[in-house]
Amino acid sequence: MYKDLSFDELSQLEIELRKQYDNFKSQNLKLDMSRGKPCSEQLELSTDMLDKINSKSTLVSRDGVDCLNYGGIDGLAECKELFAQLFDVPVANVVVGGNSSLTMMFDYISQCYIKGAGAEPWFKQGDVKFLCPAPGYDRHFAICEYFGIEMISVPMLSTGPDMDVAEELAKDSSVKGMLCVPKYSNPTGITYSDETVKRLASMDTASDFRIIWDNAYCVHHLNSQQDVLLNLFDECKKAGNPDRVVMFASTSKVTFPGAGIAALATSENNIKMIKERLTVQTIGPDKINQLRHTACFSNIDNINEHMKKHAEIIYPRFDVVLNGLNTELAPHGIASWGKPNGGYFISLDVLDGCANRVYELCKNAGVTLTNCGATYPYGKDPFDTNIRIAPTFPSVDELEKAVELLCICVKLASVEKYMKTFK
Amino acid sequence: MYKDLSFDELSQLEIELRKQYDNFKSQNLKLDMSRGKPCSEQLELSTDMLDKINSKSTLVSRDGVDCLNYGGIDGLAECKELFAQLFDVPVANVVVGGNSSLTMMFDYISQCYIKGAGAEPWFKQGDVKFLCPAPGYDRHFAICEYFGIEMISVPMLSTGPDMDVAEELAKDSSVKGMLCVPKYSNPTGITYSDETVKRLASMDTASDFRIIWDNAYCVHHLNSQQDVLLNLFDECKKAGNPDRVVMFASTSKVTFPGAGIAALATSENNIKMIKERLTVQTIGPDKINQLRHTACFSNIDNINEHMKKHAEIIYPRFDVVLNGLNTELAPHGIASWGKPNGGYFISLDVLDGCANRVYELCKNAGVTLTNCGATYPYGKDPFDTNIRIAPTFPSVDELEKAVELLCICVKLASVEKYMKTFK
Repeated sequence: MYKDLSFDELSQLEIELRKQYDNFKSQNLKLDMSRGKPCSEQLELSTDMLDKINSKSTLVSRDGVDCLNYGGIDGLAECKELFAQLFDVPVANVVVGGNSSLTMMFDYISQCYIKGAGAEPWFKQGDVKFLCPAPGYDRHFAICEYFGIEMISVPMLSTGPDMDVAEELAKDSSVKGMLCVPKYSNPTGITYSDETVKRLASMDTASDFRIIWDNAYCVHHLNSQQDVLLNLFDECKKAGNPDRVVMFASTSKVTFPGAGIAALATSENNIKMIKERLTVQTIGPDKINQLRHTACFSNIDNINEHMKKHAEIIYPRFDVVLNGLNTELAPHGIASWGKPNGGYFISLDVLDGCANRVYELCKNAGVTLTNCGATYPYGKDPFDTNIRIAPTFPSVDELEKAVELLCICVKLASVEKYMKTFK
Repeated sequence: MYKDLSFDELSQLEIELRKQYDNFKSQNLKLDMSRGKPCSEQLELSTDMLDKINSKSTLVSRDGVDCLNYGGIDGLAECKELFAQLFDVPVANVVVGGNSSLTMMFDYISQCYIKGAGAEPWFKQGDVKFLCPAPGYDRHFAICEYFGIEMISVPMLSTGPDMDVAEELAKDSSVKGMLCVPKYSNPTGITYSDETVKRLASMDTASDFRIIWDNAYCVHHLNSQQDVLLNLFDECKKAGNPDRVVMFASTSKVTFPGAGIAALATSENNIKMIKERLTVQTIGPDKINQLRHTACFSNIDNINEHMKKHAEIIYPRFDVVLNGLNTELAPHGIASWGKPNGGYFISLDVLDGCANRVYELCKNAGVTLTNCGATYPYGKDPFDTNIRIAPTFPSVDELEKAVELLCICVKLASVEKYMKTFK
């Protein structure tokens, strides 16, 4: 354990690590572990989809909608049904949108801000605050910042956000919502426990409090040990708070990022309000791309089968990173990390005050990590400890190199930290 | 001329028209002239586009962007270039979006409302008013209503909105904008004159006044007599008001409604603000669909050639309607209408107080027209006179029948009106 080493031992270690680091530096690497992007092998899994629709296809939906012309605000019948299965809700509670669930979330929050969520518009209610599980997803924080919504951090535990903290904060009627990734959470990879889901459904909140349930990784398992997430839609109904949750998902990491299909699921009341906006905002989503998707996936089983192929491609990448961390860091007591069963990230916690130093060391040797602080509201990691690793995009060979370097950098930053305690 | 007929002559005419009308009614027609939708022959012009991209295609943009993965907020280089030609502006002033220019307009106005247009957010400035050329496009009015923007009608002349009125109204600093269709205007079919464009560019307004220039029919000519619209982007620059205009267009009526590509063009300042929003609102538009379009249209000439085929299909439809109106109504002094060189509509003005009666008569005999009032702010046609005819979707045979009925209904309503003057 590094913490037990003497100053001389640390000095010796530093010289050694510095040599290893310089060796890496001389290799002029250029690797990127910063973005949760599918790799090209994953994208190739879906290129067949592009052949499903062509000039010979019948471009009419199951219920007779001409997909080449205007019409249809909330999605084709078959596409709504597919997402109803994915969300495990009735078809009537689904709206299928365009290519981006992030846009659907932004637009929903924009609607709450301007028109309200069943009460006064948020902008007319003075300060608006959101609970922000932290570490969390930087693009969720960016949406809050855009609307001037004050972000209040709620610490992430292995069971989800700390519900003792969340329940206490939610009593404040200016707290209007929470954006979260409940399954294979970004970045920690954990899935909210049943108790967490139940407490979120039943806790005391303002009547117009909304949980933006970004189920981005709902079918994105890495192995056969699949996490199971309780259905917040059902739990909110049971708790007498049916309007509390709006669930979002997309095929961005099933088929193609940017050319997939996004959807939401929520209560009848919320659906009604959302459609009132949609009829003004658009003449309808891209129905041809919906047909293209339903031609590949007629039900959720097809999607689950397809996702196994994704897992086969990315599991080895996660494995390389986890093995590297385990071999190189575990013995020294200088870091901890999650072992997710799905999703796109591994969350690495280094010693307090070391994350930025690790980032900088990696960067100077050609490996890009997610910006430190990005996983916290306002970009401020309070203890400068969290590093988000995105292992899907690089190749296994690249990852081996990148993780080797990362571990050297974590060790080096840790040694530097401990050496300072002697001064 | 009906206005010169005696009561007995009118009575006799009414009996005759009623007979013709009842004859139509017994045919149980079911025709729709209400929506500006392309017909199936038009849609077939573009089905080849669906074959342009398949699993064998190189799905990489000209500048090396992988179109299957995340990335690219404002459109592929080749797609931006295409729209730059369409708008006749530099590429740097273009943002390519998703499938709907209406959505891009809504989102831009939403941004002005929440974050402002270079000044205080509109919602913080008290009342916000828009100039509304009337008759105009119902979906523009719906956007104003959604945001609680007060609509002030500006009468449409053959040269565009009455600029004497517009200039006077625009001096009020709470007037923040104008939504309009400047070419082959919806519904009147006229194109704004050069003088109108220059006066719009140079009139006194609040600094955050914005013209939402919905150039929906920019390349949608009906015949070789093409209207030419002065470039408001250039004129605003010359007048020292470069940020005043945001131009919008789409391929909804070039390729497929709902599965086309939309774009905007505006000043560097506005582009910067719009991109600040986009980076929060989305990870990017559907790049595969952009490739699909640029595979068909590498430049504006290709689009212009393609639009000639559209014109060949829809010109005869306009012709049937215009001939019908000319033969049946012109001699009687009971209506006037536009003769557009492009766009999707014919605007028919009947005698004051008769539009709703004509609508009702048509409806009861199986022909659906656009709801009366839809072409005016708040759905109120002040003189109950305007009827918007959309001739593109029905077949020529159907249109012949529909126009015959329409003319009978206009005559009947006019006779009824004149008969009342004798009582």
